[in-house]
Amino acid sequence: MELGMIGLGRMGGNMAQRLLGGGHRIVAYDASSAAVAASQGQGAQGAASLEELAGLLAPPRAVWLMLPQGQPTEDTIDRLLPLLAQGDVILDGGNANYRDSMRRAEKLAAQGIDFMDVGTSGGIWGLTEGYSLMIGGQAETFRRLEPIFQTLAPAPDRGYSHVGPAGAGHFVKMVHNGVEYALMQAYAEGFELMAAKEEFDLDLPRIADTWRYGSVVRSWLLDLVASALEEDPGLAHLEAYVEDSGEGRWTVQEAVDLAVPVPVITLSLQERFRSRQVQPFGARLLAALRNQFGGHAVRRSE
Amino acid sequence: MELGMIGLGRMGGNMAQRLLGGGHRIVAYDASSAAVAASQGQGAQGAASLEELAGLLAPPRAVWLMLPQGQPTEDTIDRLLPLLAQGDVILDGGNANYRDSMRRAEKLAAQGIDFMDVGTSGGIWGLTEGYSLMIGGQAETFRRLEPIFQTLAPAPDRGYSHVGPAGAGHFVKMVHNGVEYALMQAYAEGFELMAAKEEFDLDLPRIADTWRYGSVVRSWLLDLVASALEEDPGLAHLEAYVEDSGEGRWTVQEAVDLAVPVPVITLSLQERFRSRQVQPFGARLLAALRNQFGGHAVRRSE
Repeated sequence: MELGMIGLGRMGGNMAQRLLGGGHRIVAYDASSAAVAASQGQGAQGAASLEELAGLLAPPRAVWLMLPQGQPTEDTIDRLLPLLAQGDVILDGGNANYRDSMRRAEKLAAQGIDFMDVGTSGGIWGLTEGYSLMIGGQAETFRRLEPIFQTLAPAPDRGYSHVGPAGAGHFVKMVHNGVEYALMQAYAEGFELMAAKEEFDLDLPRIADTWRYGSVVRSWLLDLVASALEEDPGLAHLEAYVEDSGEGRWTVQEAVDLAVPVPVITLSLQERFRSRQVQPFGARLLAALRNQFGGHAVRRSE
Repeated sequence: MELGMIGLGRMGGNMAQRLLGGGHRIVAYDASSAAVAASQGQGAQGAASLEELAGLLAPPRAVWLMLPQGQPTEDTIDRLLPLLAQGDVILDGGNANYRDSMRRAEKLAAQGIDFMDVGTSGGIWGLTEGYSLMIGGQAETFRRLEPIFQTLAPAPDRGYSHVGPAGAGHFVKMVHNGVEYALMQAYAEGFELMAAKEEFDLDLPRIADTWRYGSVVRSWLLDLVASALEEDPGLAHLEAYVEDSGEGRWTVQEAVDLAVPVPVITLSLQERFRSRQVQPFGARLLAALRNQFGGHAVRRSE
C-alpha cells in the first residue's frame, strides 16, 4: 500500500523502514531534513513539507503520525486538515491520551476524514521484531489498512487487532504501559533484594539469565534486565532516577475515575516519583516527628 | 546418570519422566504406590520404600526430594539419613525456606552427606519446556551432578546455574516467586481496568493475544493470561479467591529483615490476603467512621 509517515524519530523512522521492507510505498516527512534524507536512503520518497507529502499521496490518503503526544500531534493534525480530502485517514501511532483521540476523531469526522488511534508497542526493537498494535477506529477503515498493520506487526497473523472505536486503541495502550510500569517495578524489587543479600554474594547477571529459560517469570523485560546487568552488573553508570512519560499517570487517573483499585500500578508510578526526590520533605517530617515524640536521634542536615 | 526421585507428584513425576527421556536411570519412590507404578510405566525403577530406594542406588548416591516444604521434607530427610553413606547427596527441589536449607546442609555435612537446594521453576509445563534451576551448595557437587541439571533445564547450556552456597538456591527461588506475585498482580490490575471500561466493550482475550507478539509486556505469564481468557473471557467459573504458598511471605519478611523496600511485592501479597476476606473488619470500621463524623450513609448488614 501507500502511506505517508510524519515523524521519523526512533519509532517512526524504524516503522517507515519496516514498511519499506514489506514492499509498501512510503512518503516520509519530518521537521528534520536529515531524518527525511535518512528515510530516503532506505527507499522512502521524501517530502519537504506537509503540503508536498499530501501532494505525493494518491487519494484516499493514509497518513501516519509518529510524534510526541500533546501539542506536536495536535498542531500537525491542524496543519494537515486543510491538505486532506474526504475519505482520507489520519492514524496516530503515538502515545496520545485516549480522550484526545476521541475528540480528534470527532473533529475529523465532521470534515469527512477518518481517524485511527494505533497504540504501538515494541520500542527500538520493533524494526526487527515487529510492533504490537492496538487499533481504535472504524472497522471498515481497519480492514482497508490491514496490509499496513500486517507488515508492522511481528507476523501477518498476530500482534495487531482492532480493539474498538476511536480512542480504544490508545486506551488499551495506556493500560499496557501502566502494566509495564508494574512489571518493571516487580523485577527491580526482586533484584534489589538479591543485591542486598550480601552473605550469598549472588551473581545477578547469571541469575537473570537463568530465569530467562523455563522459569515462570520469563519475559521480554527480563531479557532486557539480563542484558543490562550483563553490561554493568552494579548498574553503577546510571543514576537511580526514573522518568515517567504520561501513560502511567493516565492509567492511575482512569482507575480513580472508574473507582477500580490498581494499587500496584499506582505504587509503581509513585516509586518513580520517589526516585526523583532528593531529601524529600516527607522523610524530613518523619525524622522530625520521631525526634519530637521519642527523642530519637536524627541526622542534622549540613 | 543415576538418581533417586522421592515425591512423584505433578512436579516430581514430570521431572522423573524428563530425566528418563534424557537417558538417566531413575529409582522412584512415593508414598502412593500408584504414583510409583505410573513412573515405572515410564521406565523408572520403582521402590516400595526409602530403604529399597537406597539399596537400588550405587554409591555415591544422589537423591532428589520433590515434596511439600516443611515437615514432609524434614521427616523424609530424617528417615533417609541412616540409609545413606558418606559422599551421598540429597537435593531438595521443593520450595523450602532457605534458612531450613542452610540448617539441613549443616546437619547433613556433619555426617559427611552433601546437600543441594535446587529452586525449581516451570510448573506443569516443565516436562516439555524444561525447568529453570537455581542451585545452592558446593561447586564440586554441582559439577558432578551437572548432567542431571542439563537434562532438567530447557537446554543443556541454559536455564540452570550454581548461584551460591547451600541456601542460596532456595533464596533465589523465594525472590523469584515474590517477583512472580507482583508480575501476576500487574496483569490482573490492567485487565480489571480494561474490563471496567464498559464504553469500549473491549475484547480482553483478543487484547491479551495481541500483546503476546511484539509488545513490551509479553511474557510467559501473559501467555497464560491469554489462554485463561480464551477459555472463559469473564472468568465466571472462578471465585475471586487467591491462595499464597509461603515464598511471597518469606520474601516480604526477608525484605523487612534487610530493610529493603519491596512495596509492590508486599502489596501483591496483601492483595491475595484481601481476596480471601469477606466483609473485612477494616472496611466495616471505615464505614462506621464515615457515619460517625460525617453522617454519611452506610449499608446496614442484614
